[in-house]
Amino acid sequence: MKKLLSLSLIFILNMVYSQNIQSPSQKIAVEFKLTPSGQPSYSVNYNNKPVILESTLGIKLKNKPALDADFEIDNVKNSSFNESWKPVLGEQATIVNHYNELIIALIQKETHIKMNIIFRVFDEGVAFRYDFPKQKDLNYFIISDEVSQFNLTDNHKVFWIPGDYDSQEYVYNESKISEIDTQKLNLNNGIGVKSIAGKHMVQSPLMMKTAEGLYLNIFEAAVVNYPVMHLNVDVANYKFNSQLVPNAIGDKAYLQTPCVSPWRTIMISDDARDIVGSKMILNLNDPCKIGDTSYIKPMKYVGIWWEMHVGKSTWDYAGSQNAQNVDGKPIPTGKHGATTENTKKYIDFAAKNGFDGVLVEGWNVGWEDWFGNWKEEVFDFTTPYPDFDIAAISAYAKEKNVKMIMHHETSASVANYERHLDRALDLMKKYDYPAAKTGYVGKIIPRGEFHDGQTMVNHFNFVARRFADNKLMVNSHESSRPTGYSRTYPNYIAAEAARGNEFNAWSNGNPPMHETILPFTRLLGGPMDYTPGIFEIKMSFYDKSKTEQVHTTLAKQLALYVTMYSPLQMAADLPENYEKYNDAFQFIKDVAADWDESKYLEAEPGDYLTVVRKAKGKETWFLGAITDENARKSEIKLDFLDKGQKYKAIIYEDAKDAHWQKNPIAYKIRTLEVTNKSKINLNLAPGGGTAISFEPIK
Amino acid sequence: MKKLLSLSLIFILNMVYSQNIQSPSQKIAVEFKLTPSGQPSYSVNYNNKPVILESTLGIKLKNKPALDADFEIDNVKNSSFNESWKPVLGEQATIVNHYNELIIALIQKETHIKMNIIFRVFDEGVAFRYDFPKQKDLNYFIISDEVSQFNLTDNHKVFWIPGDYDSQEYVYNESKISEIDTQKLNLNNGIGVKSIAGKHMVQSPLMMKTAEGLYLNIFEAAVVNYPVMHLNVDVANYKFNSQLVPNAIGDKAYLQTPCVSPWRTIMISDDARDIVGSKMILNLNDPCKIGDTSYIKPMKYVGIWWEMHVGKSTWDYAGSQNAQNVDGKPIPTGKHGATTENTKKYIDFAAKNGFDGVLVEGWNVGWEDWFGNWKEEVFDFTTPYPDFDIAAISAYAKEKNVKMIMHHETSASVANYERHLDRALDLMKKYDYPAAKTGYVGKIIPRGEFHDGQTMVNHFNFVARRFADNKLMVNSHESSRPTGYSRTYPNYIAAEAARGNEFNAWSNGNPPMHETILPFTRLLGGPMDYTPGIFEIKMSFYDKSKTEQVHTTLAKQLALYVTMYSPLQMAADLPENYEKYNDAFQFIKDVAADWDESKYLEAEPGDYLTVVRKAKGKETWFLGAITDENARKSEIKLDFLDKGQKYKAIIYEDAKDAHWQKNPIAYKIRTLEVTNKSKINLNLAPGGGTAISFEPIK
Repeated sequence: MKKLLSLSLIFILNMVYSQNIQSPSQKIAVEFKLTPSGQPSYSVNYNNKPVILESTLGIKLKNKPALDADFEIDNVKNSSFNESWKPVLGEQATIVNHYNELIIALIQKETHIKMNIIFRVFDEGVAFRYDFPKQKDLNYFIISDEVSQFNLTDNHKVFWIPGDYDSQEYVYNESKISEIDTQKLNLNNGIGVKSIAGKHMVQSPLMMKTAEGLYLNIFEAAVVNYPVMHLNVDVANYKFNSQLVPNAIGDKAYLQTPCVSPWRTIMISDDARDIVGSKMILNLNDPCKIGDTSYIKPMKYVGIWWEMHVGKSTWDYAGSQNAQNVDGKPIPTGKHGATTENTKKYIDFAAKNGFDGVLVEGWNVGWEDWFGNWKEEVFDFTTPYPDFDIAAISAYAKEKNVKMIMHHETSASVANYERHLDRALDLMKKYDYPAAKTGYVGKIIPRGEFHDGQTMVNHFNFVARRFADNKLMVNSHESSRPTGYSRTYPNYIAAEAARGNEFNAWSNGNPPMHETILPFTRLLGGPMDYTPGIFEIKMSFYDKSKTEQVHTTLAKQLALYVTMYSPLQMAADLPENYEKYNDAFQFIKDVAADWDESKYLEAEPGDYLTVVRKAKGKETWFLGAITDENARKSEIKLDFLDKGQKYKAIIYEDAKDAHWQKNPIAYKIRTLEVTNKSKINLNLAPGGGTAISFEPIK
Repeated sequence: MKKLLSLSLIFILNMVYSQNIQSPSQKIAVEFKLTPSGQPSYSVNYNNKPVILESTLGIKLKNKPALDADFEIDNVKNSSFNESWKPVLGEQATIVNHYNELIIALIQKETHIKMNIIFRVFDEGVAFRYDFPKQKDLNYFIISDEVSQFNLTDNHKVFWIPGDYDSQEYVYNESKISEIDTQKLNLNNGIGVKSIAGKHMVQSPLMMKTAEGLYLNIFEAAVVNYPVMHLNVDVANYKFNSQLVPNAIGDKAYLQTPCVSPWRTIMISDDARDIVGSKMILNLNDPCKIGDTSYIKPMKYVGIWWEMHVGKSTWDYAGSQNAQNVDGKPIPTGKHGATTENTKKYIDFAAKNGFDGVLVEGWNVGWEDWFGNWKEEVFDFTTPYPDFDIAAISAYAKEKNVKMIMHHETSASVANYERHLDRALDLMKKYDYPAAKTGYVGKIIPRGEFHDGQTMVNHFNFVARRFADNKLMVNSHESSRPTGYSRTYPNYIAAEAARGNEFNAWSNGNPPMHETILPFTRLLGGPMDYTPGIFEIKMSFYDKSKTEQVHTTLAKQLALYVTMYSPLQMAADLPENYEKYNDAFQFIKDVAADWDESKYLEAEPGDYLTVVRKAKGKETWFLGAITDENARKSEIKLDFLDKGQKYKAIIYEDAKDAHWQKNPIAYKIRTLEVTNKSKINLNLAPGGGTAISFEPIK
């Protein structure tokens, strides 16, 4: 009898605590649970069907008890939030931020440590984060692991790149979850520094599709003072476990209360357009912290850059890579791209064609021995090569009403860059450069750190803030991928942080599907400086022996200006190539880089994307449609146009026999008069695209 | 028969190659050997008796064959060098650099890698380094170990501190080599961050004495772009093996040819004065690289500093160490030392007493939560506390003809300091601060790095160069110990980098022998900012419950201004304490900080030291004599004085019953008229000293 009693007592004590929260639309429901042992977990349903099965939550600490069990509920708060805000630059003039919030305040019984878990449920997905309030029993702490889990229901289709602590410059793999295996990848892919973290490790944003046609995306938002989260996949059970990027000595994050983790996000929809068009990641970041944003402007630019990629000129002045001729006075090779004369040519071209800026890479000394040797002191960011007259160039650009874009290749020697940053920014201000492109090619210094660790996340954010302090814009390449920090610091105007167009010049390149998946992954976190606009598609144009090529048609290169959102857009090809195809070039000259409205008309990750956007403060619309390696036809209703207004539609499309590989440059241009009742048939070649401008007829 | 032949062939092939070199005096002889297996080694004799037995030489590389065997001789060069140079600031106006040099050019047979071993033999010792010329087969390389060895002949007496990668702030242990054991030390010694590297690990400079009365010192010179070398002792066999300080991932040094290692030095003499007075370490460094040295001036200074150590005021404004009252607007505690008013008081005091500078610590925000938590962003080096009016203070100091000394406590967050350094230097220039004291208390950030690793050595040298670029002087505390870089960058005016006087305020302190060993160790590498001049010896003066005290008499505190060479000398005690003992204070006001001549009259490491110095550009001489815990009498001949000139000698000495512990403040002052034929009897109390000024009588 006594035994029976105690059993029933145990039963009572063992009751699971649970709390529920739904999206405003009520389609998405999250259940938070605290197990009898005080372990927090959550699960997610979509339309009453499970999407995320019960998944663990919690944090492990270095030299302290783990914060993943022994919790009890202190209190619970529910609230709703619905407001609109206006991004400085963006895909739309106004962004709605609408969610329901649940805050579970936990106390660990033994340690008395308080940890809150905050859920926000939007119509397009779920976000949660850990919140560590200021408290007596927890001040400084070191995170050794995060046990956040995403326990999926089935063997979904997944678009993945390997979990690499140093690079995201991979082509996407499309497979079942169970087939994820980084060891089976061909790694001869042109990536400079690879640090793949495990056989079943993948990166986020991770795009998935279920057999039932549900689209899922796991990502994170507001990665600030925290490492990047990769995902360690239990391929047999479809469980994705968070894997934080370590520092040089294996620690993950150094924090002090009060503080929060980044948001862990799960987007869910039965319509892929809801995911590609979602502003959830931006909404989860802090509002703009810059007072005067007047200097933050969209920029279309050209630059001395692609000509180095195609081998026409060099970054260096005196011979590339550990040049032996720089012992004494460097002997110019005559192939240097960043000369005063060449720069003036680009300035002329920019001025003539209405571009805002000119980027010049290779302008500063150091390129003779910069890469691959973990060298600490490479560039000083202030000393031009003898054939680059920065004062004369600055004056010439001013005369032509063109802005110069600075280049800061750090060679990943971050210590060295930070030492010189203030002087580098002073130089920019002295010569009126409003923006810089930064680069991080190589193994990080401080040695032992990774591109995706807390140290580097902090560095990239620090650089954005220092640029803001000086009213300058920054566009980072080889940085950790953005998670919406550009909402908070919109002067962080763009980043590469994925496999950009450049890989097409000298590696196996980017397959035709590449640009159809990036908007579902990399671009969710912020604008990408993809550098589209390559007209001379095949590298054999420059050197008959070369087989490399851009894996799109010319028309698709145009469409990318619309599909690949960025307020900073390069016309990446050489001026002489644009002059050869001046009619197609007109689209690049016309297209906007900042928008009042964006509508995703058609979307299927890895297959196709069609989007229309209305230029900021104008009545002009632009359409971009792209496809993967498969040809595609579709009919587009123009009902987004203003009622009653006639528009001239200029359609830049693949010619009939166009093909990304066999006939990539074949395009045609036709002009129509249309209204919002019209329809347009799109005909996309394999690897092709269509770009359309809609100009109101007055 | 055949067998016999091959044996004799082997005999011929197995001949040991050897080369010899002697000091100019011929007392010291070095023999370099290449064993039959091509292993380099060396040995050293003094007066034909072995001092260093055959000891290995070489370098181990990461991911490459070791450079410690398989060598053959390429060529050998002998030369002699004898020149004089004038330090910008120093113990003497002219320094003679006289040595014989032997360069052994080696080639590794299998790898074709070239490595030179360079020996320089001075009258007071031997130096050798590794030299890696520019070559086809070796460009970038990573040092994983150095096999340089110091194989001693017997179980000598040794003055050692534990080999600690983060601190040298230890009291010295005097023992036999065989008794070295870091695990037996009392580590309750007030040191903030300790990283003792092993049971038998010691630091250099390492002072020794043989049973035959020979003095030996192992050290290094010109540690530039290389980690500090500690010594791993084989206590049974008296072998000292070099132990380079690792970085965060265990590597030792990243180098690119052409490059050199630091010099490894062995000083040898039967007269301890030859070692304490040697300029060999400076001579082994590169000549001055600063063009205009006019801003580099000796400085005597006072400062808001000791009052924090004794608890009279605080560095912080609103409550020390993780203050809970700084959540909102910080609430001043009223104990802040660095106020405008207090600073003006010190400026007045400095002006009245002829001091050049006033240091103010705790002037800038951040001290409420700065220490012990590996916090990255603590200080910004530019934001004064609200009660420190930097503009008003700067103007007031200018009016009083006193220079302000800036303080940059980095809390060892070097990454953060480097990010702010240019702005910090700009602030110094704006407010006319000619010098800064830097501090590195805590665990280094970048995390995983040590104070003594290559990264930090480079940082300290970088800071010196950046200060030089801005015509500013720097005095580092908690840096790696100097190895003569102040010859090359004399604006690196001083360093602490050993257990300074401050430890006497709040720890078990520095025993009376401490200051008698430092000139044989730490000071060989450069000036030390020991901060002498404490008159109120016992901390019970401030707080009756305190038992801490300075472990010297007051008279010894005066003598330290002469025995402890530095062109930057603090009068560390409080103005009100000096005013109480104004007659003794006169010596501090009179003593010089830069010298034309220095003569070490008596020296025994760990026991006593007597030195006289002639003020730069003047006819005034100063004598400092100190002893350890034992009283000491001696008779000093004044034959260093100018012949025929009469001098007024003011003798500041221990009173009859003075004793560092029982009666430390008891001093007397007497005045004599003397000539170079005179003798003076010194009477030093236990832990005592004597200071004398000699002023020519006109």
